[in-house]
Amino acid sequence: MSLRIGVLGGGQLGRMMALAGYPLNLSFSFYDRAENCPSAVLGQRFGDNDYSAESLQAFIDSADVFTYEFENIPTAWVEAIAAQKPVFPGVKSLAVSQNRLNEKQLFNELKIPSARYHEIRAEADLSAAVAELGLPLVVKTVTDGYDGKGQFLLREAEQISLCWQQLGGSVPLIAEEFVQFRRELSIIAVRAQDGQTQFYPLAENHHHRGILSHSIVPAPHLDENTQLTAERYISSILQSLNHVGVLTLELFETRHGLVANETAPRVHNSGHWSIEGAHCSQFENHVRAVAGLPLGCTRAEKPCAMLNIIGEHPDSAGILSVTDAHLHLYGKTERADRKLGHITVLADSYPELSGRMLKLADMLPNPMSLHLSR
Amino acid sequence: MSLRIGVLGGGQLGRMMALAGYPLNLSFSFYDRAENCPSAVLGQRFGDNDYSAESLQAFIDSADVFTYEFENIPTAWVEAIAAQKPVFPGVKSLAVSQNRLNEKQLFNELKIPSARYHEIRAEADLSAAVAELGLPLVVKTVTDGYDGKGQFLLREAEQISLCWQQLGGSVPLIAEEFVQFRRELSIIAVRAQDGQTQFYPLAENHHHRGILSHSIVPAPHLDENTQLTAERYISSILQSLNHVGVLTLELFETRHGLVANETAPRVHNSGHWSIEGAHCSQFENHVRAVAGLPLGCTRAEKPCAMLNIIGEHPDSAGILSVTDAHLHLYGKTERADRKLGHITVLADSYPELSGRMLKLADMLPNPMSLHLSR
Repeated sequence: MSLRIGVLGGGQLGRMMALAGYPLNLSFSFYDRAENCPSAVLGQRFGDNDYSAESLQAFIDSADVFTYEFENIPTAWVEAIAAQKPVFPGVKSLAVSQNRLNEKQLFNELKIPSARYHEIRAEADLSAAVAELGLPLVVKTVTDGYDGKGQFLLREAEQISLCWQQLGGSVPLIAEEFVQFRRELSIIAVRAQDGQTQFYPLAENHHHRGILSHSIVPAPHLDENTQLTAERYISSILQSLNHVGVLTLELFETRHGLVANETAPRVHNSGHWSIEGAHCSQFENHVRAVAGLPLGCTRAEKPCAMLNIIGEHPDSAGILSVTDAHLHLYGKTERADRKLGHITVLADSYPELSGRMLKLADMLPNPMSLHLSR
Repeated sequence: MSLRIGVLGGGQLGRMMALAGYPLNLSFSFYDRAENCPSAVLGQRFGDNDYSAESLQAFIDSADVFTYEFENIPTAWVEAIAAQKPVFPGVKSLAVSQNRLNEKQLFNELKIPSARYHEIRAEADLSAAVAELGLPLVVKTVTDGYDGKGQFLLREAEQISLCWQQLGGSVPLIAEEFVQFRRELSIIAVRAQDGQTQFYPLAENHHHRGILSHSIVPAPHLDENTQLTAERYISSILQSLNHVGVLTLELFETRHGLVANETAPRVHNSGHWSIEGAHCSQFENHVRAVAGLPLGCTRAEKPCAMLNIIGEHPDSAGILSVTDAHLHLYGKTERADRKLGHITVLADSYPELSGRMLKLADMLPNPMSLHLSR
């Protein structure tokens, strides 16, 4: 009677999916070789040390419908599952998001503005890219990059050989024109099996050393047009991929409007605020879509912020003593640059929100440059 | 690093505690002999068929701090734990709430109005009770009653022998004066280890065949004075018991003010609305108190209702298609009169709430007499 969802990956995203799914009578299994992965306490874990075919098959046998919480997984796993049972989002969503060239091609096909780019297969291509696109250039691996890893900011032509030295082992690369942006935004949408689609309000995202530091939702000082444009872009991606589940689109806000940066075919760190901040969280909406249930309301009633906890655990009691602050820890051990949890904080106005964020930031070990003057 | 909470009982209340506690880096074990109890998927389960001393000890060894989700458990279990490790709420809270005579004495000591009563140890005591208190009388077992079980409404003196036949096997009994009430209310409070106390808004409760059918929060048409009086009553109980954790006080609203009915030393069905309806739910606040963390805000921002799902599962998709309805299923199999789950629904006004409740009630198998004319 209880539908079981199999999740490829057992990190914090799977953990938060399970916490959202149990109340809907869903149960969970996870494919992750780490015995102490954050999801292990919330379902049955599969996956031996070398992710053998047998362990994958045992995982497939364990559940009724499948999803993934991380896009850097072998497409072959998803194809193996898809041959036997339903997987949402499908292989196409995965293939696009795990390859920056595919992603760029999709943006161009759908006429979604994005940075001009040049494919790099040899050091000489870097010089050609500089000649064509100018400087600075952002050089990235085409696959496997996340949290700023596998990137090089090429400011001067003299850095070409250094850049090639660092990234040349992972060809193909992609060199993108550097986008002069005011701020980074992201939009999260969810699409049901029947095509019904809901959009969360745009988040304003801030990074520290390539890792998301905090998000503010709804992004302040936003005209309605920007939200609608972002919804139009992500809608066309969802439809083109026949995507089912949550999809995230990272965007730059520039003088000339929104420019697409990248997609993630999954729940996203910039949507963690939705657990308390929206009527129905991205996690609940994702599992609803995967389970074939109707979607919930994505509206935010008041300003809200999400602050990541990185590297070290703060004092829980201190955090929880801040008005309307909510703590989410992932059950991980401390390690530099590791996402250990997040805090959501709500307020009745942006100035009140800023005050609460400042209090919280003081208790966090990771430096956080809060842009709170607005 | 992660504090483990051991919960006596593995029903839906334990399940919802665990769902609220994992984000705080808490983990859980449960003492319940039912392998498929609702909490079993969310922690380690202990308890053999006869609840042997060995199984209790293994449970005690498994966690750092303890609580219970059901008051009809042997006090000896709680005493055994208390001899070794902290238990919240303490034995005193349990002893009072599991014995209606103790409870009445406490109400009287604290000058909290409650129905006059008569202790019954023999059939002749029933006649004496009728002579002293008049008719009708509510005759109840002193221990073990819940959801209307172990009660007899004595309307006429002729029913005395029938009443004695039905309940006489469970002496002592208590015969209470029948309270003419307008409606039943309940207040839920939570007290931290340092004595800090927070109160949820009063809930208006409706029953069907002795089982809670639905609650509306904040109880409509309430003057501030009623809320404050309820807070004063429950405060004095919390302090008198040195209670830590959630406590519930059921009340009758009468022409002469509030009359206490009974207490429960735990999270309560009439507080399930708080998962979506309050900033911090009764479950999160209970585990915060047990874990020694500061309490969260108990305020409700808008009108909210909780509808119980009893006996049969409704169509999940139908329920979730109602605006701002949230589904909570407990992973139980269907059985007459069994609480299988609940629905929370929020709205911007009571009339809007009524409309949504009517839609939901139509989809529920259990008859629900909704008093929505207000």
